[in-house]
Amino acid sequence: MSEIYSKLMKHLEKSTALETALVLFQWDSETLAPEKSMELTAKSIGILSSEYYNSLINEDVKSLLDKLSEEDEQKQLDFNQKAIVKKLRKTFEEMEHIPPEEYQAYQELIAKAPGIWSKAKQENHYPSFAPYLEEIMNYNKKFAGYRVKEGQELYDVLLNDYEEGFNTKELDVFFDKVKSAIVPLLKEVVKKNDMIKKEYNYESFEIDKQKEFCNFISQYVGFDLSRGVIAESAHPFTTKLHNQDVRITNHFLEHNLESAIFSIIHETGHALYEMNVDSAITLSPVGTGASMGMHESQSRFFENIIGRSKSFWIPVFSKLQETFPEQLKDVSLDSFIKGINKSVPNLIRTEADELTYSLHIIIRYEIEKMIFAGEASIHHLPAIWNQKYKEYLGVEPPSDSNGILQDIHWSCGNIGYFPSYAIGSAIAAQIYYHMEAIMPFHSYLEEGNLAPISEYLKEHIHKYGASKNTNELLMDMMKEPLNPDYYVRYLTEKYTKLYEL
Amino acid sequence: MSEIYSKLMKHLEKSTALETALVLFQWDSETLAPEKSMELTAKSIGILSSEYYNSLINEDVKSLLDKLSEEDEQKQLDFNQKAIVKKLRKTFEEMEHIPPEEYQAYQELIAKAPGIWSKAKQENHYPSFAPYLEEIMNYNKKFAGYRVKEGQELYDVLLNDYEEGFNTKELDVFFDKVKSAIVPLLKEVVKKNDMIKKEYNYESFEIDKQKEFCNFISQYVGFDLSRGVIAESAHPFTTKLHNQDVRITNHFLEHNLESAIFSIIHETGHALYEMNVDSAITLSPVGTGASMGMHESQSRFFENIIGRSKSFWIPVFSKLQETFPEQLKDVSLDSFIKGINKSVPNLIRTEADELTYSLHIIIRYEIEKMIFAGEASIHHLPAIWNQKYKEYLGVEPPSDSNGILQDIHWSCGNIGYFPSYAIGSAIAAQIYYHMEAIMPFHSYLEEGNLAPISEYLKEHIHKYGASKNTNELLMDMMKEPLNPDYYVRYLTEKYTKLYEL
Repeated sequence: MSEIYSKLMKHLEKSTALETALVLFQWDSETLAPEKSMELTAKSIGILSSEYYNSLINEDVKSLLDKLSEEDEQKQLDFNQKAIVKKLRKTFEEMEHIPPEEYQAYQELIAKAPGIWSKAKQENHYPSFAPYLEEIMNYNKKFAGYRVKEGQELYDVLLNDYEEGFNTKELDVFFDKVKSAIVPLLKEVVKKNDMIKKEYNYESFEIDKQKEFCNFISQYVGFDLSRGVIAESAHPFTTKLHNQDVRITNHFLEHNLESAIFSIIHETGHALYEMNVDSAITLSPVGTGASMGMHESQSRFFENIIGRSKSFWIPVFSKLQETFPEQLKDVSLDSFIKGINKSVPNLIRTEADELTYSLHIIIRYEIEKMIFAGEASIHHLPAIWNQKYKEYLGVEPPSDSNGILQDIHWSCGNIGYFPSYAIGSAIAAQIYYHMEAIMPFHSYLEEGNLAPISEYLKEHIHKYGASKNTNELLMDMMKEPLNPDYYVRYLTEKYTKLYEL
Repeated sequence: MSEIYSKLMKHLEKSTALETALVLFQWDSETLAPEKSMELTAKSIGILSSEYYNSLINEDVKSLLDKLSEEDEQKQLDFNQKAIVKKLRKTFEEMEHIPPEEYQAYQELIAKAPGIWSKAKQENHYPSFAPYLEEIMNYNKKFAGYRVKEGQELYDVLLNDYEEGFNTKELDVFFDKVKSAIVPLLKEVVKKNDMIKKEYNYESFEIDKQKEFCNFISQYVGFDLSRGVIAESAHPFTTKLHNQDVRITNHFLEHNLESAIFSIIHETGHALYEMNVDSAITLSPVGTGASMGMHESQSRFFENIIGRSKSFWIPVFSKLQETFPEQLKDVSLDSFIKGINKSVPNLIRTEADELTYSLHIIIRYEIEKMIFAGEASIHHLPAIWNQKYKEYLGVEPPSDSNGILQDIHWSCGNIGYFPSYAIGSAIAAQIYYHMEAIMPFHSYLEEGNLAPISEYLKEHIHKYGASKNTNELLMDMMKEPLNPDYYVRYLTEKYTKLYEL
């Protein structure tokens, strides 16, 4: 191993250990920590965060990275090592221009803001969150300003953090294509809204039995409990310490059967990605998904393309019926499949169906662009939000809690993150057509044999972690970069058939 | 605040943050982490341990501690600050002679060893754990060797870590006194073994209902769920991030009602100690119990002296009967009290009654002494163990799982720790006679009013954390240091009465 690379590894080991600790604190605070613990625990988290920052952003690391970028050194590095150096340079460049005091102040702000947001949402009081939102947006503009390149849009700096190589120019084309296909399609679907009945979904479903079924279905999809944990939290999420310890959460609503089932399949998709990252890189900066969009492609592939297909449910629907015999005795497999795919425009992104989901994302994308272009003041966001919901989805939020205040993301400083969800859906559709062409995809599902599907994803996507970026993965797998046409085709075919349009 | 002390605080904040992270990893690995996670997680733990080591053991801290020990500086320190400096000096002296590489290697070893031990115990295969045990013992001998003082026994170095000021000379006297009183007393008790029936305890008790009752009884004793967590693990234990986040675990056996109940009362005793540590010191090196023995005195005080008394059960026995009406319908309060105090020599320390408990400890103490004196090879430990059980308790382990492999302690590197349990029992008895003399102790229990008892312990023991040592606490509270006569008196009185000897 290159001597200089070995030196870099020492720094990396430390930052990975600190990062792992921070992940564990985060997991613990969302799943278990007692109500009054946070104030004192936050002190330790603050100190470890700043240790993490210092472990990466220092003169030693800078000079090692500079040396490792020279041609002679590059020659000595293997594929993974090159990827690690590249990823680290990216992280370094994202952070190095931020003065430590500003970094610390911003970390404190986004540690506090989710609590403020949560209260504002609960009390339906946007003005109490607005000043925090403004400050967060200003920090993000400022931080982006430190590293914006000549001719680059400020917002593009953030987009590129979540999805390397993507910018507003490309995303405008992407979203225009999606919007112009979905908006008219949705209008047709809405007209036939009564065609699909799913009252059964809102009966009473005993939570313990939901848990039992969700644990079963997660393992059926491939979750390995010897290398993972399933717990509960207010909002389902996935996290990991490394590929031998991947954790997902679920939430349960007594009067909504679908919610927990599709949440757990979604998180299992994320989890399989992390469980399948190659062991050689799991404890390195590339030991995680390639990007947010790529990650969402996997969760959505399992949740929607697999999980909402008839083929998937053929072997397991009877088990669901056995779990809830009273509630599901009069529901046939076919009406269940229709029910779980029913499209109804609504106010809440996390409850959106496949067809309307991207419209929720487009609204957020357009608003973020406006903020960064100085075309929307924080004060006017609720009105802009509501107007767009009316225009694209035909629904109007009765309150800001169901409108501008519904998502936690901005309060955590995740700006430029939402587009990843739509990119993920589009990638999932593209992968689907590819896999369907090269393997007996639906037969596998009908036989309850998901292993060949996971195995293919592992070999072509998961195992690489972030050592390749999104388009590199797609090119190597399918000889084609991201192409939204597949997504439009998928939604059009699916909903035309479902609603007999 | 002294300028030098402020500088020390910066180091302390970092080491406290790292220590808190290590506590969380430990908690997680024993309650939740998936089976296969440990090998990779151990790497992060190893690195954070060595960061922790470096945060304390460095020239800066050494010189600050030296300065703060000077008379002029001492004058500027308040009581807590002096205690923190003193405790830190002790920790510093314990660690400074251990080379960092050895420290890290040892931390990784004891992160892995409990998993090996657990498997060996499950498979009743001592030889697969023996090499790890040998390595752990060798490290401990080596580390003790680095700091042994002239004329001091190697084993005394470790004893002093857990119980400041205690050594084999004193403990030999202590244990001889206990042994010579208990062994003959136990022989009399065994003769009347049939006098107390407790078959009811081994019926089937639904685990969910056990959990429900245990959660109730823990809160009844004083556990505050807004500042704590109750979870499950193979062996019950207590840990804490700080006084606002104290965590205990329990375990459940379908065919043993007592096991979970007395485990949870025991751990609640530990938890109250940690929850009551003063907020001014909770995030400092003295923000925990004074010593292992002092900690055990509190858990045993609640488990045995309170929890096995008739007064305690008068207000709550009916609730237990309501929880298990079928199983307990023919059990009177009096026969229940006799049942939970019945003494039967058995193989397992954690299932031992009050009378035989110290004999289990004496065996471990004698074996540890032999190992450190080079009088017992790791290979021969099972035979030595079995022979001693036969001699002191009259029982012989049918397998190593029920013998030498029963305790987790050695696999965690806790050598010299077992005597603390017996010291704890002795302190608990001494405190009992003191409190009974100054307050209507049993009336409080009969009224279900435990607050004045906890409050007294908080004011005289808990709130000080480790800012006073064991004998300082006992002296300030009762004008007398540890005196094992109370313990002998307590057991003699109790069992003479119970068995009508």
